[in-house]
Amino acid sequence: MKTEKTVNDLARLVGGEAEGTTTRIISGVAPLENAGEGDASFLESERNLTQAIASRAGCLVAPPGLDLPKKTVIRVRNPRYGFAQIIQVLFPPPPRRPEIHPTAQIGDNVTLGTEVAIGPYAVIGEGSRIGARSSIGAGCVLGEKIVLGEDCLLYPRVTLYAGTRIGCRVILHSGCVVGGDGFGYVMEAGQYHKFPQIGGVEIADDVEIGSNSTVDRGALEDTRIGRGTKIDNLVQVGHTVQIGANCVVASQTGISGSSVIEDYVVIAGQVGLGDHARVQKGAILGGQCGILPHKTVRAGQTVWGTPARPLREQLEQQALVARLPQLLQKLGALRTRNSTETARKNRPD
Amino acid sequence: MKTEKTVNDLARLVGGEAEGTTTRIISGVAPLENAGEGDASFLESERNLTQAIASRAGCLVAPPGLDLPKKTVIRVRNPRYGFAQIIQVLFPPPPRRPEIHPTAQIGDNVTLGTEVAIGPYAVIGEGSRIGARSSIGAGCVLGEKIVLGEDCLLYPRVTLYAGTRIGCRVILHSGCVVGGDGFGYVMEAGQYHKFPQIGGVEIADDVEIGSNSTVDRGALEDTRIGRGTKIDNLVQVGHTVQIGANCVVASQTGISGSSVIEDYVVIAGQVGLGDHARVQKGAILGGQCGILPHKTVRAGQTVWGTPARPLREQLEQQALVARLPQLLQKLGALRTRNSTETARKNRPD
Amino acid sequence: MKTEKTVNDLARLVGGEAEGTTTRIISGVAPLENAGEGDASFLESERNLTQAIASRAGCLVAPPGLDLPKKTVIRVRNPRYGFAQIIQVLFPPPPRRPEIHPTAQIGDNVTLGTEVAIGPYAVIGEGSRIGARSSIGAGCVLGEKIVLGEDCLLYPRVTLYAGTRIGCRVILHSGCVVGGDGFGYVMEAGQYHKFPQIGGVEIADDVEIGSNSTVDRGALEDTRIGRGTKIDNLVQVGHTVQIGANCVVASQTGISGSSVIEDYVVIAGQVGLGDHARVQKGAILGGQCGILPHKTVRAGQTVWGTPARPLREQLEQQALVARLPQLLQKLGALRTRNSTETARKNRPD
Repeated sequence: MKTEKTVNDLARLVGGEAEGTTTRIISGVAPLENAGEGDASFLESERNLTQAIASRAGCLVAPPGLDLPKKTVIRVRNPRYGFAQIIQVLFPPPPRRPEIHPTAQIGDNVTLGTEVAIGPYAVIGEGSRIGARSSIGAGCVLGEKIVLGEDCLLYPRVTLYAGTRIGCRVILHSGCVVGGDGFGYVMEAGQYHKFPQIGGVEIADDVEIGSNSTVDRGALEDTRIGRGTKIDNLVQVGHTVQIGANCVVASQTGISGSSVIEDYVVIAGQVGLGDHARVQKGAILGGQCGILPHKTVRAGQTVWGTPARPLREQLEQQALVARLPQLLQKLGALRTRNSTETARKNRPD
Repeated sequence: MKTEKTVNDLARLVGGEAEGTTTRIISGVAPLENAGEGDASFLESERNLTQAIASRAGCLVAPPGLDLPKKTVIRVRNPRYGFAQIIQVLFPPPPRRPEIHPTAQIGDNVTLGTEVAIGPYAVIGEGSRIGARSSIGAGCVLGEKIVLGEDCLLYPRVTLYAGTRIGCRVILHSGCVVGGDGFGYVMEAGQYHKFPQIGGVEIADDVEIGSNSTVDRGALEDTRIGRGTKIDNLVQVGHTVQIGANCVVASQTGISGSSVIEDYVVIAGQVGLGDHARVQKGAILGGQCGILPHKTVRAGQTVWGTPARPLREQLEQQALVARLPQLLQKLGALRTRNSTETARKNRPD
Repeated sequence: MKTEKTVNDLARLVGGEAEGTTTRIISGVAPLENAGEGDASFLESERNLTQAIASRAGCLVAPPGLDLPKKTVIRVRNPRYGFAQIIQVLFPPPPRRPEIHPTAQIGDNVTLGTEVAIGPYAVIGEGSRIGARSSIGAGCVLGEKIVLGEDCLLYPRVTLYAGTRIGCRVILHSGCVVGGDGFGYVMEAGQYHKFPQIGGVEIADDVEIGSNSTVDRGALEDTRIGRGTKIDNLVQVGHTVQIGANCVVASQTGISGSSVIEDYVVIAGQVGLGDHARVQKGAILGGQCGILPHKTVRAGQTVWGTPARPLREQLEQQALVARLPQLLQKLGALRTRNSTETARKNRPD
């Protein structure tokens, strides 16, 4: 669904100041280079100033102070956030239909809050509780004794294993699996035997988890994902991992068992964390890096490489390795000269 | 289903020349080392000549000019392609049954072409259009306003989010998820807020995508996958990524948001591309390599390592690093000698 | 479900010796640091002795010989295994309900063993055979002519493509896909054409495969996973791969086509194996390492890095690379001195 607003309306909605042709009608959004007269666009700093001035966007969301002569502008402190709010206004999500499809299989003693939506062929296990206004997509399978908070959105084909507990406003994308057994075995008499995985999974409010990601249940104690943390597609969260609040974990990262990620950590794509690693508050893990088992990344540090080290060290090292051919040449020259010197010195004067 | 043909028949079918016992009945296919008299096998070059001569295969598909005395041979310019055609003849796929299972949930205003097949418990959202002869497997969930072309094959449990547009002859394997939200957030007041993902996904003709792969919808504009591109299992395609035609992307590769992959690019397994990377036409990315955000890989180049660099440089560098122990030893020797020299020189003559 | 036992009971069940307050009631389990009087905990060696002595656990499972004064102890040779057995006794899995849900779609000529359980909306293709006491979760889709042994456990939303053959006591977690087409194409006239994938998949007894993992069918011959092998979440097993018995493969590892993994191999997370690689018996592949195509890892070897090399070499090399700045400095000093020497020598004495 699509709607339209004047620049003035939008400015009011995002708490910004409108400048220029503030009665202009805006009905779309686009990047600076593709925006037309009916579109809003945004820039965050001087870096995009030239592009913004060249843009045909009917309205620019921009921070105060940037000089944008003759442009229609909405000034806000955080233009990306303001722009996101404008998108939500212009492209409101389709209205929820709080209906429970007749094919949904709902077990005994399931408690459903008001206005819950359940799609076709979804299955809800015995004794589960679904909070008000939560939506469960087609083909989702929720095991027994699930607790799901209010205003959650489960896209089609999500699996929650028995006992999983999830907060409010949580979004789980299609194919994600929460609560599967952790990867634990004991070798005895030449065979691997399953180490029972009896912990659960607890996901706090405002978490989002991407498509086909997997979050294992704890071995003895719960796996936990903290409030406001966002996890991308195809991410693996191992058993008994503790992830704090307001973290972001990009696609295809794997977090091994019992690792601890503190609040506000940023993890790029394809990162690997060994078991029992600890990443302290606000640290940043660069793409594809590897944290060894039992290692700690210090608060606020940015690390990269495998084994991960502080970014600056890693870059220096990479630069040095790149200079190796040159280094080798110099060493060769030195040896030649040295031999010549030695030869000269050793001949009878 | 399995059928059988004479060598002559097969030669005719693949447009090749038959030599030897051309009336021999062939009913199977196998690698050179395991093939028996009823089997066809193939070789592409002299590299497998010894193996081919030792093989018991009843028929060898081979390029012209390779000397294969006493063998029954079908000569074709591209033996692998000829062999693939022979497999299709001997092992035709089971006949399609163009039936719509009574349990399929088909929304209002859905348009179905002729001979569409829809499996049990599949769900098709309102306003979707399914082209002629397309098959939708059991448990697939297609959102609203999907466009799916003709002769597509969706294996069981595929999810297409609302608005996804797919061409003809596209194959999507089980568990793959197309059109999930891209991973975009804005930090405001210490919290991540969702940046609405309002772009779509457009997949061109003849694309194949493997099991449990994920293709995110665009942030503002569409994510696109070009004609004839083949994507393996567990691959992540981020929001607004543009993949050209005739690319191959191997398993577990991740392509971050807004990256551009031009035509005929080959990407090996577990490769990571940062956001806004560009890979020009015909480039090859080696296994596990990492392309940094905003970087360009030049047309036709083969790169490897993280950060990725031209393969030859990367190999040279690896060789030099491997020689470091030796290098260090030489440097040590040089220092010792130098110190001795210096000591000698400094003593009173 | 939860039960309770005396220390004596538990000791008898695991074949161990009880010491201390052996009539104490144990109803839970916990790690040493969090265990209370009703909990069992365990330690394997002196490494955790201090923690064990400080623990409030009502019962410690420990190896013979460790001095644990005043503690209630169950002595067993393999405490981790004993502890796993105790968990199974105290937390028995919920009883199976061998019911076939009325919504399950069971094709013609399907053979079901005794006490088979099939969940809602599961689909079983024609001609399949399901062994006694096997459970097939909600929303699973099994193609035609599947063979599934006895006592298997398929969690919800597993897909088995047609013809897959699976042994007894196999556990497949939610979202895993077995038997999808391998990634094989032939280039002809500038287009990729599908190389038909006509091999199958054979999974032996006692295998476990994690959530959203993918196992491709063979190209010409079967993909095989040996007895007792355990595979984690989001793992990719390519076409015609041969995995031996009693291996463990951690999360997000990718094994390319035609690779061979012999028995008792341990593969850490995010490892990549090129096609036709071979890993001999008992080798260990470190996290994120990369085995090049056609390479062999020797029996018993531990390797790491990309390209993978023996762990000790890899660590030495890493240490040397880390010393490069120092090395460079020394080389610089040497050059300076050398130049000075040369200058001195060349001046007229």
